[in-house]
Amino acid sequence: MGKGMECPENSQANMKVICGEAGYVLEDVPHLTDYLPELPTFPNPLQSNPAYSVVKQYFVNVDDSVAQKIVVHKDSPRGVHFRRAGPRQKIYFESDEVHACVVTCGGLCPGLNTVIREIVCGLYHMYGVNKILGIDGGYRGFYAKNTVPLTPKIVDDIHKRGGTILGTSRGGHDTSKIVDSIQDRGINQVYIIGGDGTQRGAAVIFEEIRRRGLKVAVAGIPKTIDNDIPVIDKSFGFDTAVEEAQRAINAAHVEAGSIENGLGVVKLMGRYSGFIAMYATLASRDVDCCLIPESPFYLEGKGGLFEYIEKRLKENGHMVIVIAEGAGQDLLSESLQNTDLKDASGNKLLQDVGLWLSQRIKDHFSGQQKMVINLKHIDPTYMIRAIPGNASDNVYSTLLSHSAVHGAMAGYTGFVVGPVNGRHAMIPFNRITERQNKVVITDRMWARLLASTNQPSFLNPKDVTEVRKEEPQTQIQLVDGGKY
Amino acid sequence: MGKGMECPENSQANMKVICGEAGYVLEDVPHLTDYLPELPTFPNPLQSNPAYSVVKQYFVNVDDSVAQKIVVHKDSPRGVHFRRAGPRQKIYFESDEVHACVVTCGGLCPGLNTVIREIVCGLYHMYGVNKILGIDGGYRGFYAKNTVPLTPKIVDDIHKRGGTILGTSRGGHDTSKIVDSIQDRGINQVYIIGGDGTQRGAAVIFEEIRRRGLKVAVAGIPKTIDNDIPVIDKSFGFDTAVEEAQRAINAAHVEAGSIENGLGVVKLMGRYSGFIAMYATLASRDVDCCLIPESPFYLEGKGGLFEYIEKRLKENGHMVIVIAEGAGQDLLSESLQNTDLKDASGNKLLQDVGLWLSQRIKDHFSGQQKMVINLKHIDPTYMIRAIPGNASDNVYSTLLSHSAVHGAMAGYTGFVVGPVNGRHAMIPFNRITERQNKVVITDRMWARLLASTNQPSFLNPKDVTEVRKEEPQTQIQLVDGGKY
Amino acid sequence: MGKGMECPENSQANMKVICGEAGYVLEDVPHLTDYLPELPTFPNPLQSNPAYSVVKQYFVNVDDSVAQKIVVHKDSPRGVHFRRAGPRQKIYFESDEVHACVVTCGGLCPGLNTVIREIVCGLYHMYGVNKILGIDGGYRGFYAKNTVPLTPKIVDDIHKRGGTILGTSRGGHDTSKIVDSIQDRGINQVYIIGGDGTQRGAAVIFEEIRRRGLKVAVAGIPKTIDNDIPVIDKSFGFDTAVEEAQRAINAAHVEAGSIENGLGVVKLMGRYSGFIAMYATLASRDVDCCLIPESPFYLEGKGGLFEYIEKRLKENGHMVIVIAEGAGQDLLSESLQNTDLKDASGNKLLQDVGLWLSQRIKDHFSGQQKMVINLKHIDPTYMIRAIPGNASDNVYSTLLSHSAVHGAMAGYTGFVVGPVNGRHAMIPFNRITERQNKVVITDRMWARLLASTNQPSFLNPKDVTEVRKEEPQTQIQLVDGGKY
Amino acid sequence: MGKGMECPENSQANMKVICGEAGYVLEDVPHLTDYLPELPTFPNPLQSNPAYSVVKQYFVNVDDSVAQKIVVHKDSPRGVHFRRAGPRQKIYFESDEVHACVVTCGGLCPGLNTVIREIVCGLYHMYGVNKILGIDGGYRGFYAKNTVPLTPKIVDDIHKRGGTILGTSRGGHDTSKIVDSIQDRGINQVYIIGGDGTQRGAAVIFEEIRRRGLKVAVAGIPKTIDNDIPVIDKSFGFDTAVEEAQRAINAAHVEAGSIENGLGVVKLMGRYSGFIAMYATLASRDVDCCLIPESPFYLEGKGGLFEYIEKRLKENGHMVIVIAEGAGQDLLSESLQNTDLKDASGNKLLQDVGLWLSQRIKDHFSGQQKMVINLKHIDPTYMIRAIPGNASDNVYSTLLSHSAVHGAMAGYTGFVVGPVNGRHAMIPFNRITERQNKVVITDRMWARLLASTNQPSFLNPKDVTEVRKEEPQTQIQLVDGGKY
Repeated sequence: MGKGMECPENSQANMKVICGEAGYVLEDVPHLTDYLPELPTFPNPLQSNPAYSVVKQYFVNVDDSVAQKIVVHKDSPRGVHFRRAGPRQKIYFESDEVHACVVTCGGLCPGLNTVIREIVCGLYHMYGVNKILGIDGGYRGFYAKNTVPLTPKIVDDIHKRGGTILGTSRGGHDTSKIVDSIQDRGINQVYIIGGDGTQRGAAVIFEEIRRRGLKVAVAGIPKTIDNDIPVIDKSFGFDTAVEEAQRAINAAHVEAGSIENGLGVVKLMGRYSGFIAMYATLASRDVDCCLIPESPFYLEGKGGLFEYIEKRLKENGHMVIVIAEGAGQDLLSESLQNTDLKDASGNKLLQDVGLWLSQRIKDHFSGQQKMVINLKHIDPTYMIRAIPGNASDNVYSTLLSHSAVHGAMAGYTGFVVGPVNGRHAMIPFNRITERQNKVVITDRMWARLLASTNQPSFLNPKDVTEVRKEEPQTQIQLVDGGKY
Repeated sequence: MGKGMECPENSQANMKVICGEAGYVLEDVPHLTDYLPELPTFPNPLQSNPAYSVVKQYFVNVDDSVAQKIVVHKDSPRGVHFRRAGPRQKIYFESDEVHACVVTCGGLCPGLNTVIREIVCGLYHMYGVNKILGIDGGYRGFYAKNTVPLTPKIVDDIHKRGGTILGTSRGGHDTSKIVDSIQDRGINQVYIIGGDGTQRGAAVIFEEIRRRGLKVAVAGIPKTIDNDIPVIDKSFGFDTAVEEAQRAINAAHVEAGSIENGLGVVKLMGRYSGFIAMYATLASRDVDCCLIPESPFYLEGKGGLFEYIEKRLKENGHMVIVIAEGAGQDLLSESLQNTDLKDASGNKLLQDVGLWLSQRIKDHFSGQQKMVINLKHIDPTYMIRAIPGNASDNVYSTLLSHSAVHGAMAGYTGFVVGPVNGRHAMIPFNRITERQNKVVITDRMWARLLASTNQPSFLNPKDVTEVRKEEPQTQIQLVDGGKY
Repeated sequence: MGKGMECPENSQANMKVICGEAGYVLEDVPHLTDYLPELPTFPNPLQSNPAYSVVKQYFVNVDDSVAQKIVVHKDSPRGVHFRRAGPRQKIYFESDEVHACVVTCGGLCPGLNTVIREIVCGLYHMYGVNKILGIDGGYRGFYAKNTVPLTPKIVDDIHKRGGTILGTSRGGHDTSKIVDSIQDRGINQVYIIGGDGTQRGAAVIFEEIRRRGLKVAVAGIPKTIDNDIPVIDKSFGFDTAVEEAQRAINAAHVEAGSIENGLGVVKLMGRYSGFIAMYATLASRDVDCCLIPESPFYLEGKGGLFEYIEKRLKENGHMVIVIAEGAGQDLLSESLQNTDLKDASGNKLLQDVGLWLSQRIKDHFSGQQKMVINLKHIDPTYMIRAIPGNASDNVYSTLLSHSAVHGAMAGYTGFVVGPVNGRHAMIPFNRITERQNKVVITDRMWARLLASTNQPSFLNPKDVTEVRKEEPQTQIQLVDGGKY
Repeated sequence: MGKGMECPENSQANMKVICGEAGYVLEDVPHLTDYLPELPTFPNPLQSNPAYSVVKQYFVNVDDSVAQKIVVHKDSPRGVHFRRAGPRQKIYFESDEVHACVVTCGGLCPGLNTVIREIVCGLYHMYGVNKILGIDGGYRGFYAKNTVPLTPKIVDDIHKRGGTILGTSRGGHDTSKIVDSIQDRGINQVYIIGGDGTQRGAAVIFEEIRRRGLKVAVAGIPKTIDNDIPVIDKSFGFDTAVEEAQRAINAAHVEAGSIENGLGVVKLMGRYSGFIAMYATLASRDVDCCLIPESPFYLEGKGGLFEYIEKRLKENGHMVIVIAEGAGQDLLSESLQNTDLKDASGNKLLQDVGLWLSQRIKDHFSGQQKMVINLKHIDPTYMIRAIPGNASDNVYSTLLSHSAVHGAMAGYTGFVVGPVNGRHAMIPFNRITERQNKVVITDRMWARLLASTNQPSFLNPKDVTEVRKEEPQTQIQLVDGGKY
């Protein structure tokens, strides 16, 4: 054991933790040999690939790890590390032996098709694999639908299209049916693209596969347009989403600015985390107020939203509000309880926070005869989700897919891939599913946002104390605003 | 009198109608000399403008007219004509004498700023006018706000921005206050940019000005993103709107196609006329059903929308519906009467036809357990309205503005400008305000749309007979689909 | 014969000219029955198409014609007309009998794939035709390549892609081989998409087919991104090209404006006609000088381009020049003769007018030490040509294709289609190949451009006289700037 | 001293190097107190800024450093660190005292205006500074031009425009005139935005200021669209450039694919480093060959480019080549020596590698009659440079500017700012000017590119050995492809 940090107890049975000097900790991922110790290995075919002939140190050193802690002091402990992603000298599958499948679950996200494309092209071009199946329509496609064959030719142009060519769905997770299907079809590499719910499902599939002692590698590619997956630097599609959100904010700005007391309300994605709203606001510079799930706010009274709106309209004549879909859920629930709406449909509609907030603002200002406002509500959600990934997300998605392919070929399993401080790593499922990445409102990034919009923090001193207390001590990116 | 057509009775006191041979009819516009017969004239300064030195026949012949009827037979009468727009050899204002103002009313429309810019630059560069005022915030700005000075420098870049730099509002028309303000400020050219309501107001202002015997020219530039103004070929901003609507339709197509029984619903502009929906559908080729105000439809039963949706989803697995905001208003009113919703806000929300239709479709399919559908509703309205005009609309808006300027300088008044069969003309107010331009559903353009979407006509034989009867006999663009 | 205009002599053997009262002239197109008088007819299947069931007067009246002359006086003759395009009650092909082919020739143009798509979909959906071939790679594909089958499924998404899925080439026209191939393959409808050279080839193919007495309809769809085809209102792709050219002009404006004496030179398409340059300039408002083939200019001395550049840079500090590729060809040839360049490649490069002009400007200002200029040359040609058609061009291309299909099915042949004053018509080949549509620099549209850029006309009084003389007397769009 | 690495000799007089345990090294930046030890400090006004009231640990710990080494082993030394950027508790300027200036030098880059805006807004909103000057037109503006005042209002919208509102130029560096001007105008914070040449100039200015003992902080914001600045993760504008380059590549792909033996050549930026070409290629997936300065290639003979082109055209019928402007300079020089071109202008044109390569390819294939090729050359350089930053670059530029402002306010000087492994740091000038960031062709990222294009490496075994030898041993990002 090194000094400066105790090697933590392996509180979770499945965690593989390795410790070193000066507080070095490696949170490792499972490997097929953990439960199939006799597996033979093969030389990596990349060694004879002309494209790689010139590459020095092409293969990742078996001991390489990626540091999660990057801001340090001279004497601080080295902290948590993850196993580096990338090609290994020895692999555990022969090209002919591989029978891979790819499944996409959950909502749309720019770059989905690029990820699919690059799993297929990566397996084919780098490892000579040509048995690859697409699972149709999410988890339930494993047992309820036909599969579709995937070849480089079929996926050639799909990265220029939005959506997912495989189709997707929510739910449909039935562990034994899925693992039966994997076993029956002879699949031995499973690539699962989806959000935290999907990856929790992937973890269960991995456990069942391990329980059955199958030589099947399970690799997750984390997908969340909201960027709410922890540990990794950012999720694919996020960049594209922030870019595309600019259109809606611009439109709201123009609409608001062309009419007296114009008020543009833009609802953006972000059920639990306000990253899209925050970055879209920071990129735009046209937003006067940004409301996110992590930062509570209230409508009425001193220091409330209505007061701020009134002040802003009096000063500027117009304003733009960006609200993440998960913001103000406490207010929304309260509001719905007090209403005696019986009609199911009306009810449903009101649960959309953008529509709800717009209505509350209209009611407030019409009720009090204070000032006539002109509110325009814009919800670009589906227009954002459905576009193809931009260049930056395309390159990023490629690296993600290749990391997953390299990991699975090298016999690693039960992991997701993602960059940690700019270097691709393999991360145990539980690290990314046990909590969500959230905007830290005691962080400088959020302070920057408040400074740029001039909006109040909507917090009273008691809130501040509580918010500060809630922050995890291990959150190391605090000051610099993080992972972007 | 020519043969083939009687010169019609001047049923409307203000109409100036001139007849000629072979059924030639000219529906003329008023002129300042109609009530101020002694006005002096001046040579047009364009004669000494170097840019025009090479132009042959620069000035419009005083007798030029533009034919509304373009599809003819060998023996058919020549039909209605309008006075051609363009510079005249003699003008009725000296450069120094002109004191112009510009006002924008109603909703946003791509190209508004280009129209403002080109009135200012046209007056300045072609006629040496430099007293031009912007009226702030629509009609009420005449009496309730300060004006803003407009110079070529101030408007230099505004065509690259959406919205209107002058601000806009609805209503606020108070004839005597407005004409008082015009008189008090010494304004003698009034440029009014707005839709049919606004132009009706402009007609009243013109009448009052004539009644008072003022030397003030009133020129209207018709604005309607919906393209629902009759006589003229198309309205500015329409092209841009159809283009921008493609984004929303593409997104709906991707969303619908990525999920089982995916249904994308896109609500587009079009309160009384479905032109945007129709052209956006024709341009996209991804739409399975287009619903517009002009074509009644019903939801339930044989031949209804629900049946068609079910059929289409079974065939294709997904579909896209485009609905104009004014479509199905009869169904919507009926639906609202039957509901016992008491809550004002819920009520309001339901009046949006996109949300209403989406809810009805969801209720239908969830109620009957027939099939689980995944509906995504997209309303890109404000994102479309707020963008700047595209190149085509910029050039078009320039010509509109210049026609208005030439007309006013030449002493014409009480007119709007617009292209008739590709040639710019001056048209009396009442011709464009007395009825709306509508999609003619007995026309080939609508038939083309039906053929391209394969949707049913939702008409029963009785409807067909009625629809055919309703069509005006004078609608001459019928067969070719019109004015685009 | 009517009064006001004599029915012209049929100076060209193939012209079918019909005259009527009041100076009415119809320039008609050939029909299969001209040389195969006994052909049977069939009822148009559109009659039983549900989409058309509600359409009143769906079929074009056999006598409908479209007026070319739209600006008139009370007493002016009615002028030239063309046969109206559109579906006929009687057709000359049965659905099963049709064996159509489509070929694309010449350079790329936005909308090409839409035209292909809509010929296929139009034939299939409206007339039940399912034998349609694509000719690969232009005219030479008729005899030197395999054909590709075209179905609605194959062409479903192609309108969203630039280029042509059929491939294209220049030249390769071999009349007898082509007509042999048509005859041997049993093709009886030939759709030829291409520019004036291509359509001259189509005319020859038509003549040969008539000579051989074949029942084969030949229909041309005129393609020219330069908009240089006469008679028709505009060519497909032109709108998209003008729009896309804005990017390059904006970039030139930014580059020029960020540096002292910055000079942005943008070369746009337009070998013989400067329409793209003119409209792109009018739409942009950032251009200080627009040079087109129709308007001669000179570089040195008083009133020359160099003088203007110097003046403009001194006033504004930067400027943007747009030059059409065919502008200044006289200067360019002269310049190349005087040079003693031996190197073929250097030579070639200099023949690009954008590069040549840029070099001349640099040489002038560096030579004279007058002022240090910073010139940036941008040639967006291929970036413009390769994009898909915008919404406006997509709708327009659809109508063009359908007009061609209706015409061929109705037995017309030897014609091209295109809108004349907004109504689609069939036009004899020679009308569009015998001369080019050009910017009329004695026209008001060009004067508008000069007024907006403030550039000199670069004409001396003698030039003006000559230019005026050259103008055809029959050019009727003169004053209004025309066909846009 | 820790084990594993000796604290290096301070070989360069100005380097401040601090060492710690386990091989920890900090390469520090200068501070005003290095030569003005008695300077008073002030509390940071951010402490009382409401936006920051909730922020925990808002201020950067004085000892925080950022690790350059992120991929490690259990026992590897900790390596080089840089001083963390961010606000300090104590600052060395009072708000009223600050007199800042901003200058932009060199070529255009997306995001320049955002950087300017955020220096102004950051100083104003965070530190209450309102004396900020813009230097007009690069370094020479310090002594040869008037300054322009910069306020939040003036810069409000500039981030939506391309270029730089301050103007720019190359060269013009005259140390004593510049420092005289700084001294005479009483400027005490100098923000210099520019590439490596500019930053070398900034280092000299800093040295002269130190020599004169002035209380003036000099902060550099590194600008290079080519991403060729070492140490930092990426440079602003790079992301936008890669995105925009996709348009040109798409166009080349369409052009090439529409014609037999179509060959699209796209020249992209990259004088010394091929990052834009490499990432644009990886993002696009339509490129068959990517040529960059770092990877030598040859044209003729076995394994050469011509052979590859011929092979590729025979296989696919078309291909796309991306070439960075600095690629193949050795071939180009050789080629120019052998030519007997006398004409200066021809010569100049040939020095453009895109035109040169295009001509060589044409000559090769025309000369040998082997195959007729159709080559289209696209140079989108100025269209890329001139666009505004995208959302990602806007956020990034904001953080850069704020880091510079925090650093200068805290008394640091002689530094540039930039993210190192995702955390913003202050870096000594010489670290970023002494060498360039280059694509490491023995790195996996380049191997990925080769694998995706299937192009040969154009290297013979001897080259490989040499290339491998050249690689610096300390290059730690080797395997993962780095800094993106």
